[in-house]
Amino acid sequence: MPLNRRITLAARPVGVPLESDFALDEVEIGSPQMGEALVRTLYASVDPYQRGRMSEARSYAKSLEVGDVITSVNLGEVVESNDPRFSPGDLVVGQLGWQEYANARAGTLRQVPPLLEPPTLALHAIGLTGFTAYFGLFDIGKPRPGDTVVVSAAAGAVGQIAGQLAKLAGCRTVGIAGGPEKIRDLTELYGYDAAIDYKSDDVGGALRNERVDVYFDNVGGEISQAVQRRLNLGARIVICGQVSLYNAVRPEPTFHPGLLVVFRAHMEGFLVFDYAHRYDEAAGKLAQWVANGDIHWREDVTDGLENAPRSFIGMLNGDNRGKALVKVAERA
Amino acid sequence: MPLNRRITLAARPVGVPLESDFALDEVEIGSPQMGEALVRTLYASVDPYQRGRMSEARSYAKSLEVGDVITSVNLGEVVESNDPRFSPGDLVVGQLGWQEYANARAGTLRQVPPLLEPPTLALHAIGLTGFTAYFGLFDIGKPRPGDTVVVSAAAGAVGQIAGQLAKLAGCRTVGIAGGPEKIRDLTELYGYDAAIDYKSDDVGGALRNERVDVYFDNVGGEISQAVQRRLNLGARIVICGQVSLYNAVRPEPTFHPGLLVVFRAHMEGFLVFDYAHRYDEAAGKLAQWVANGDIHWREDVTDGLENAPRSFIGMLNGDNRGKALVKVAERA
Repeated sequence: MPLNRRITLAARPVGVPLESDFALDEVEIGSPQMGEALVRTLYASVDPYQRGRMSEARSYAKSLEVGDVITSVNLGEVVESNDPRFSPGDLVVGQLGWQEYANARAGTLRQVPPLLEPPTLALHAIGLTGFTAYFGLFDIGKPRPGDTVVVSAAAGAVGQIAGQLAKLAGCRTVGIAGGPEKIRDLTELYGYDAAIDYKSDDVGGALRNERVDVYFDNVGGEISQAVQRRLNLGARIVICGQVSLYNAVRPEPTFHPGLLVVFRAHMEGFLVFDYAHRYDEAAGKLAQWVANGDIHWREDVTDGLENAPRSFIGMLNGDNRGKALVKVAERA
Repeated sequence: MPLNRRITLAARPVGVPLESDFALDEVEIGSPQMGEALVRTLYASVDPYQRGRMSEARSYAKSLEVGDVITSVNLGEVVESNDPRFSPGDLVVGQLGWQEYANARAGTLRQVPPLLEPPTLALHAIGLTGFTAYFGLFDIGKPRPGDTVVVSAAAGAVGQIAGQLAKLAGCRTVGIAGGPEKIRDLTELYGYDAAIDYKSDDVGGALRNERVDVYFDNVGGEISQAVQRRLNLGARIVICGQVSLYNAVRPEPTFHPGLLVVFRAHMEGFLVFDYAHRYDEAAGKLAQWVANGDIHWREDVTDGLENAPRSFIGMLNGDNRGKALVKVAERA
């Protein structure tokens, strides 16, 4: 058995994480216990929520301790199984962390359909990012045909899917992203009706003639403040993420609840994990739309587990163009 | 015909309104046009939303101009009618403004049941404040038996009714108000299970052992920030008012949308006027509960139209103990 290389939390980041907040180590990995499978990581996911796990602030999940492996969802291959549900060679998705190997309880693993091509779709459009867009948009945003749906971080992992789902629901879609490459992707790849570059445009001005029925918010902060001045009556604000604030040492409040009275609007937060009992529903729909060519996607792959911290820091800075993934190993 | 005394806006208040922001004048009042009724004011209502009408900021209703009569809902008596639906002597409620007489379109008036005693209930528990509590709590807050419901400005007009409706729905109720008299009313008159005096207690500390399922918010600001740290998963925050901010010249944002993710919570604003098609439903239920002795209420009556500005300024400062009303005339 080779040693297991892992990325652990070396220090709690203060503000913007540094590569020195992470450490690479190697440990032995045992055999799977009864009911477990040993999984080799092929791709590890890089997501904004990981920043929250690194801080001590109370949140929806327990914080990481210094020395812990960084939490992540991975695509992996079963190497050895001590559970009847999995066999060596099976492709699975699970919360395995930034490491080469993990023994996982079989009940926490999700089988990847054998013919899914590329299999990394199970980490993106037909995985947690797709599910996040699906439940956030449809269950919280409740779009109706003809609605105007604005998405922030619209070229990001969740945003690119959310915009296309809104289009499928018959909505006008407006995406907000930073920089000319992402802006081009918004209209040319993801089918947004309009694109706003927050790095060069005045977001509030660009939305002057819009009446926003659904705001799918991934970023918070100033961009969201500008969007929220353009709400339509009865608007729904879906709080998916607030990534612009995740590195703030002491984030200031950004929202006036009185706006919800002016616009008779509704703001709601959600966590995709609460919808686990409905993942199959979302996966079925998303797979069909991907197969039909109705959903396009882009991955931003970094090679090598040791580069996961760099990919993560870049993503928090908006450097990624599409779903951030780290390739850890080739399939056997 | 006597002259019509009116309170008009003399100047837009900056910050806390001053009595000099209002003027008293006298004008002639004509006879009602076809489809109108001439109504003599008996009681005029004093409500926080009036502060919003006095400022220029964009909101859900048009601002008052300097010289306009202050908007208000009144209980009045029909003096002369040019519409078959009303006869002299009828008691009505309508948006008549701070003045002794108004010609109102008959369709905008609401008949007060002849035996309602006292008839000012039609401005309070069986009127717009009761309707506000009813729709805000039941349609937005959606309380379930056993839920913990926290109400701010809990001894105020809407708050006192909201707390009692939550109790009727089988909830544990916690009221927040300022000063020993109101605090006594909360538990002794309005049946709150617990009362917090924000003037002497640390609100967050007092809520340490609560898990708040519904927060019916009338005040905003620091009190709300403290409550929002004690939410239960799936909490509903009903934004009814933000009175602590109405006098702020440039109110700062007070809310972190990310909290809604942590607690998978929902925040929604509403306006009672949007529920006009359901006022009869609310009036019927509220009248029954009042008749049964299930809803208690308190009025805070100021005598004389000329004292309406003083009553209003005091209410914004929290000086009123119960629904603020101005008595303008005796019934003929």
